[in-house]
This record gives sequence, structure tokens and C-alpha cells, in this order.
Amino acid sequence: MKPVILITGASGFTGEHACRHFQALGMRVFAVSRSPYATLSADIVRSCDVTDPRSVQQVVTAASPDYVLHLAGMNDVRSSWKDPLACMEVNVTGTLHLLSSLTSLDRKPRVLIVSSALSFDPADEPPRPSHPYALSKTLQTLTARAWSHMFDIPVMAAEPSNLIGPGTSTGLCGLLADYIVRWERGSADDPFQVSSLTERRNYLDVRDAVTAYERILLQGTPGTLYRFGSQELRSIGEVLSSFESALGKPFPYTNLHASPRDPDPSLPSPVQMAHIGWTPRIPFARSIRDILQDARARQATPSD
Amino acid sequence: MKPVILITGASGFTGEHACRHFQALGMRVFAVSRSPYATLSADIVRSCDVTDPRSVQQVVTAASPDYVLHLAGMNDVRSSWKDPLACMEVNVTGTLHLLSSLTSLDRKPRVLIVSSALSFDPADEPPRPSHPYALSKTLQTLTARAWSHMFDIPVMAAEPSNLIGPGTSTGLCGLLADYIVRWERGSADDPFQVSSLTERRNYLDVRDAVTAYERILLQGTPGTLYRFGSQELRSIGEVLSSFESALGKPFPYTNLHASPRDPDPSLPSPVQMAHIGWTPRIPFARSIRDILQDARARQATPSD
Repeated sequence: MKPVILITGASGFTGEHACRHFQALGMRVFAVSRSPYATLSADIVRSCDVTDPRSVQQVVTAASPDYVLHLAGMNDVRSSWKDPLACMEVNVTGTLHLLSSLTSLDRKPRVLIVSSALSFDPADEPPRPSHPYALSKTLQTLTARAWSHMFDIPVMAAEPSNLIGPGTSTGLCGLLADYIVRWERGSADDPFQVSSLTERRNYLDVRDAVTAYERILLQGTPGTLYRFGSQELRSIGEVLSSFESALGKPFPYTNLHASPRDPDPSLPSPVQMAHIGWTPRIPFARSIRDILQDARARQATPSD
Repeated sequence: MKPVILITGASGFTGEHACRHFQALGMRVFAVSRSPYATLSADIVRSCDVTDPRSVQQVVTAASPDYVLHLAGMNDVRSSWKDPLACMEVNVTGTLHLLSSLTSLDRKPRVLIVSSALSFDPADEPPRPSHPYALSKTLQTLTARAWSHMFDIPVMAAEPSNLIGPGTSTGLCGLLADYIVRWERGSADDPFQVSSLTERRNYLDVRDAVTAYERILLQGTPGTLYRFGSQELRSIGEVLSSFESALGKPFPYTNLHASPRDPDPSLPSPVQMAHIGWTPRIPFARSIRDILQDARARQATPSD
């Protein structure tokens, strides 16, 4: 019998990679999403809205999973300002629906709740999240870890840094690749706009992140928060240069601000993840090449 | 024009005292509760379920308050184990509904979200709340403080210790007073059962707490958490003795455990509350006398 993994948010950017990865690993993938599509690399594909507790209970009962990878959520800062209540409902209440539905299972699965490095530290005094998304992710992480302790279910939490890679992503690299392809075809009007060339971020390939999720699900300690990313910070200027290198020529862009709006994020210690056998493998330049190639393939029409 | 205060959870133990207090203070009291009753000391009484965002939006719009005192919530550890999801929904999502409804108001009210000293410290590593109620109260406090920062609304949070006093309370003193009155009338079968005689808690009279809420609403700094209680811990044995003193004779009780299950709570520093002009005034012995007298009055039937 293959082990069963229930993956929520399966049609999202990370979800697609996760479905492929765990299927290749020999697991039976039970993929759920609010709007799933048939081409997902999964054994079973179901529709599930995490804000509806009955919908969550139904898929959990049907899947009876050995592992649960919870990726579903609103993952975008701008939307969290537009509708903070919806952001909290999807990210916090949705996670609660999933966790509380697990108590009905005879055999408790190992669960990974994927939060974000954009969360704020709950030990900060006073608590000052930069946006509702950060608040939602801090509450999600706390809930996951607390649940593990209170209900004796092996729940781990992950806070990965900015994920990049092939697939449909609304992050900087994804938007940039889409822009470049439009520009190559002569259909981009204005230069690409970035906030600041000197702002630095930690970028990790989504395929490395999915391997990290595998390690945490298999080897992680219940109640633990795993923070990880690459071992270097890159400025937005460096990201633009990497795209120019992959492209072999410059493309038009402008920056809105001279100095960074946000301070440098802290570099996650590599020790915690090395301890469970994980280290990032994909070089940044390869991520950029793959993103560009994927954007070109996705924008290619049959007539091209 | 009188200032308007919106009080949620108005028919609860603290809510009744709060309505009376703010009405006596000259405010127009807009009292809401899931099941309000007409005898509340309020100018306007409305029904409102905080888990229903439209219901919350309606009363906030109708009240257009200068002050909001948010007391509504599930306030009982045992119920939080029975239905953790409901506890989180009422205490966390309910608070979110209230906070997000305030953005529709032109003039932002000063808001106090009442949490509990039973919350756990979000800086604890790892986070290990004793029960779902503690988790819900920690998330509620974090949300209130974060909201104040993100949306520039003057929201304060309060974590009072165990509240005691006249009125219907499911706390130790309330249950004990009800037991004693039944025992006086010969209708109590078994001795009153307590967990441990040596377990110590911090008890504060609910009327002192309501005065603290007034001080925080008028003088508190937005985003701040106010922790307060009395300046002494009392063992359950001392509580039983105080009831025997008020009664003038012993009554039957048993204890289940020799040693306390929980460690002593920390004593809140009096400095923060003294700074906004508050200090507790009601001696413990008076609280106990008033509780007993109130329990007798409530259990008195017309034929007595």
C-alpha cells in the first residue's frame, strides 16, 4: 500500500510542484484545491474550500491520509490589504478547519502547515506586522504548533523565504519573466517597474522548497517551526541582472525608490534543516533560466 | 451629546457590571449580546452574534460608537476542549469581525478588546498553551494589538486575572456561592469539590475590572496590552476559609488533588495601571460577602 498524502492548495504555484514531487516519490497524491484542474499530477483530484469546515472534513475523511501538506491560503500582501478579513479567514480559520478535522481520524497523519517568512515574530514587543498577510501567517504558525502540543498530533510548521521557479507565480521573478516574454514579442508598452534596486530578499527555488517539505514531513519534530531559504540575500538589481544574463541582452525597467523600503530579512540558520538532511541544490542562475523558459512556453500559442 | 459606548457580550457576567458602570458614568450604552435581555442597564439593547460579520457590521453602523468594549466570547476552558473550533471562531474570528467593521466608520472609536490572563505568552518557545481557550486568547490579544498598528485605530487589549463578584459567574467563587446557598437550604447532596487546596490564583473584583476598562478606554495607549489583577495570590484553601468567615460556619468540601495542578500565575506589575490612574479598591472579604448575598438573593423564590 502506497502512503497517502493530502495536498491542499494543489493547483497553486507550489502545489503543482508538490503533487509532481510526492507522486514521483511513490506516494498516492490526494490533491485538493478550491478550483482544481484535471491535469494535476495526482491520483485523486477534489474540490475543497478550506473556509468551509464540512468541505474540509469530507476530503480528510475520504483521503484518510498518512501525510498532509497544507499549502492552501491567500498568499499575497496586496490582497491582504484589500480584504484583511478574507485573508485571516482563509489562512487562519482554514488551517483551523483542517487541524480540527484530523481529530476524527483513527490514525493521526503527520502534518506540515506551510506559513511564510513574511510572518512577524510573535515575541516582538509591541507586535507590529507590516501587513494583514504577516499577521495571518504568524497566527497560522502559532496555531499549528499549539495544536500539535494540545491534541498530540504531529504537526510541523514551515516558514520558507520567497519561492521562485517555473510555474504561475505572482512573485517578482514570475511577473518579470512574463514581462520579458511580452517585451520580446513587442507587446509590452512601459518599462518593468520595481520598488527599489537595492532592496534585498532571500530567494529559494520552489523545487528545493518541496524537497524541504518532504524532509520535514518524514523527519520533522512535532510542534517545531522550520525556517529556511537560500544562504544568500540578493538585491532586486541582482535579480534584474540575472534575467539579463539569461536573456543575453538588457530589457527596459525603472525603479520607484532609490533606497529599500524594507530592511534586509534575516538569513535562516542552515543547521536546523541540515539536521533533517536538507540543503538547497538549485543555483539561482538555473532558477532564472527555467523561469524564463517556462514563461516562454506558457505564452506560446499554437500558431507560434 | 453623551458619548456612546458599544458593549458586546453585554448580558455576560462582566457585561452587566460594565453596562451599569458606563451608564452611571453618563455614557449612552449600546448593549449587544447573542441573547440580550430587556433588564440590562442600557439605553439600547440589540441582539448580535459576533460570528456573523453582517450582524456585527449592522450594530457598529447603528451605534456609531465613541468607545467599544469587546467582552463577547467563549470564556470557559472546559467548553474550549469540547469544541475548540467554536472557541476559536467566537474569540478570534468574532474579534476580527468587530475590528474590521470599524474601518467603515468615519470617526474611529477607542476600542478595548478584553482577553484573559489565561492566555499563553506568544514569546514562549515552543508555544504550549494549556488549552484551546489559552490559544484563542493569545491570538485575540495579538490580533487586537496588530490591528491598532496596521489600521491606525486606537485599539487596546486587556488581560485581567480571575474576575469574581456578584452576578452569574461560572468561576470558582460563583459556583461555590451557589453551592453554599443550596447547602443552607438542605438541597446539596455531596460536598463541594475543588481540584486542590494549595493551588493559588489571582482574584480581582469584577467591579474593579470594569473601572480598569474605563481607565484604559479613556487613557490607554493604542496597541498596548494591559495586564492587571489584585496584588496577591490566594490559595483555594484561603478562598474556602473566606466563604466560611462570611458564612459564620464551616460547610462540606473535598479536594481531588493534594498538590496544585498549575504553577502559580505571575503577579502583574501595578505600575502600568497606576500610570493611567487605576488601582484595585474592593477588599477580597467584601467581594466574598457580596457574592454570597447576591447568590442568596438570586436563589430566593417569591414564596421565601
